[in-house]
Amino acid sequence: MWYKTKVTEQCGIDYPIIQAGMAGSTTPELVATVSEQGGLGTIGAGYMTPETLEQEILQVKTLTSKPFSVNLFVPEPFTYTDEDVTAMNDFLAPYRETLQLEKPTIGQHDPSTFDTLVNIVIQQQVPVCSFTFGIPDEQTIQRLKEAGIVLIGSATTVDEAKKVEVAGFDAVVAQGSEAGGHRATFDDTPKTSPLIGTMALIPQVVDHVSIPVIAAGGVMDGRGWVASHALGAQGVQIGTAFLTTHESQAKAVHKHAIFNSVETDVIVTHELSGKPARGISNAFIQHLRQEGPVILPYPIQNDLTKQIRATAGKLGKSAWMHMWSGQGVRLARDVDAATFFTQLIQNAQSQVEKFKV
Amino acid sequence: MWYKTKVTEQCGIDYPIIQAGMAGSTTPELVATVSEQGGLGTIGAGYMTPETLEQEILQVKTLTSKPFSVNLFVPEPFTYTDEDVTAMNDFLAPYRETLQLEKPTIGQHDPSTFDTLVNIVIQQQVPVCSFTFGIPDEQTIQRLKEAGIVLIGSATTVDEAKKVEVAGFDAVVAQGSEAGGHRATFDDTPKTSPLIGTMALIPQVVDHVSIPVIAAGGVMDGRGWVASHALGAQGVQIGTAFLTTHESQAKAVHKHAIFNSVETDVIVTHELSGKPARGISNAFIQHLRQEGPVILPYPIQNDLTKQIRATAGKLGKSAWMHMWSGQGVRLARDVDAATFFTQLIQNAQSQVEKFKV
Repeated sequence: MWYKTKVTEQCGIDYPIIQAGMAGSTTPELVATVSEQGGLGTIGAGYMTPETLEQEILQVKTLTSKPFSVNLFVPEPFTYTDEDVTAMNDFLAPYRETLQLEKPTIGQHDPSTFDTLVNIVIQQQVPVCSFTFGIPDEQTIQRLKEAGIVLIGSATTVDEAKKVEVAGFDAVVAQGSEAGGHRATFDDTPKTSPLIGTMALIPQVVDHVSIPVIAAGGVMDGRGWVASHALGAQGVQIGTAFLTTHESQAKAVHKHAIFNSVETDVIVTHELSGKPARGISNAFIQHLRQEGPVILPYPIQNDLTKQIRATAGKLGKSAWMHMWSGQGVRLARDVDAATFFTQLIQNAQSQVEKFKV
Repeated sequence: MWYKTKVTEQCGIDYPIIQAGMAGSTTPELVATVSEQGGLGTIGAGYMTPETLEQEILQVKTLTSKPFSVNLFVPEPFTYTDEDVTAMNDFLAPYRETLQLEKPTIGQHDPSTFDTLVNIVIQQQVPVCSFTFGIPDEQTIQRLKEAGIVLIGSATTVDEAKKVEVAGFDAVVAQGSEAGGHRATFDDTPKTSPLIGTMALIPQVVDHVSIPVIAAGGVMDGRGWVASHALGAQGVQIGTAFLTTHESQAKAVHKHAIFNSVETDVIVTHELSGKPARGISNAFIQHLRQEGPVILPYPIQNDLTKQIRATAGKLGKSAWMHMWSGQGVRLARDVDAATFFTQLIQNAQSQVEKFKV
């Protein structure tokens, strides 16, 4: 079958369909459902503590014996001034006052936390581990490989994909400009990201690396899946279409916004976290953009705004939260993950039929 | 065959492959070659005088008896101040001095020129006419339809595509963000354009219109063509890959820049013409962006910079010209148009084979 690729072989899965590691929105139920259906569920561990990650892995294991993945954010160096933090906190003060929030403390961001997360992945023998925002050091890659863990990197340009290959990864997710959530860019300044559309990015990456390429960005149904394989990808990573499934823990108001948005409502913003990310525009982003002080680098900006966004999310206040989403919003569906997965496979098969004549 | 679609039927062509109407870069040879190969060549008449258009149509007719197309720019209202023109001319003065150019006069931009161009298309019984930057008035559409001319519109969003359908067009080109040259956006302010990636745009447009959708943006070879059909498109429009063929009259230095660029060198700029367009970044764009005065609206900004760009092009001075290009630069080839076309068909067939297993 056309969908039996090096990716299905490497990961030991039936279909080369990876549920994206959407930090903050995945649940053990979502991960396990995708894996049970024959795809690769991913625990979005980008913001998790070691304790939470371990707990989530154990929960996934109680729900499925099939392969699954953990996605980690590679820590990057960053610098900032206390003046900029003060200016941003002053700007955000009225938001906190309305939501009755204390001024936040900046997180520890101890790079050793990353090592602890990696250790858990190894100890728990997680079959696949994917990385966003860069490439871990040689020693970390070596340890993961010795543990027999399949490694997937992320790239937004051909050069980044080449670096992922050189570092020894087994496969690379090529993230097109359509993709929701954080840009995986690591070869760039924090504020911008090359926005190469999936249609242009995939064949160019495929021509320049020998590891399998997994397409991400705009893939919402069987059409996008088949199109990605036509472009030379050996699998797809799907975010937004899984974010709106019942098993995702994205806030109801976030899912509602996706169902009620059109493609032009979705923008790239670095104002919320300090790193460019794609989501639905709202008043908080526009206020920061138009009147805000200097945006701090990731993860500091994230520290300063996250309470506001989380509390707004709980209150259903869409104007003040983050609503990550790709550009394919009109194709998002209010379904459970198993139904989405089944329809994806069926839809792809019917697309493929048309090429048989 | 999978590529026999409503578009091949409407246009009377063998393959639903449209050579984009790249204003300033098409030649009768390019247009006729594409049509002779079974695709649809397009005279890029966006900046042509009626005399030139008539001459080009007659030349194409001597070279082929197959269907071909003319692409026209729909005139839009615009306003500007003499102060802004003066400021821009002052800014551009050192460029003109170096190139020994006189201060330019602003063109007439008499909207009746558009009517004259339409009349020529009708008189010459051009089989297909495509439009960029909007929708002609009802009467014009009526006249073209009565003459039996197939009408193709352009859209960059679902809403624009719906407007094209409502206006009575036979098909719509959905232009993804990857596409080179001017953004076809007409539902927007002049400086920005929604940049929806082809992978996300095509299926969303397909779901919202009943006329056939032609994919544009990032399609450089058989992979992109097949992928576009997987997404639901019934044809493709290809620009950059035809721009670098021997028959295109794009400047040698422009083609050379495309062959030597990578995807991240390609940006969207409104600084050269007053309308957003995708091309390779250079010193002229960056100077205008960083230090230039207010950018005039299209077509005034175009009037003010075009001599500089044209003269720079003749001198091979890539830093001061426009070098329109899509994001698929690494896939551009230095070939003649017939060879490109043949390889496109062969490549597509081999992509399709993989879906038969």
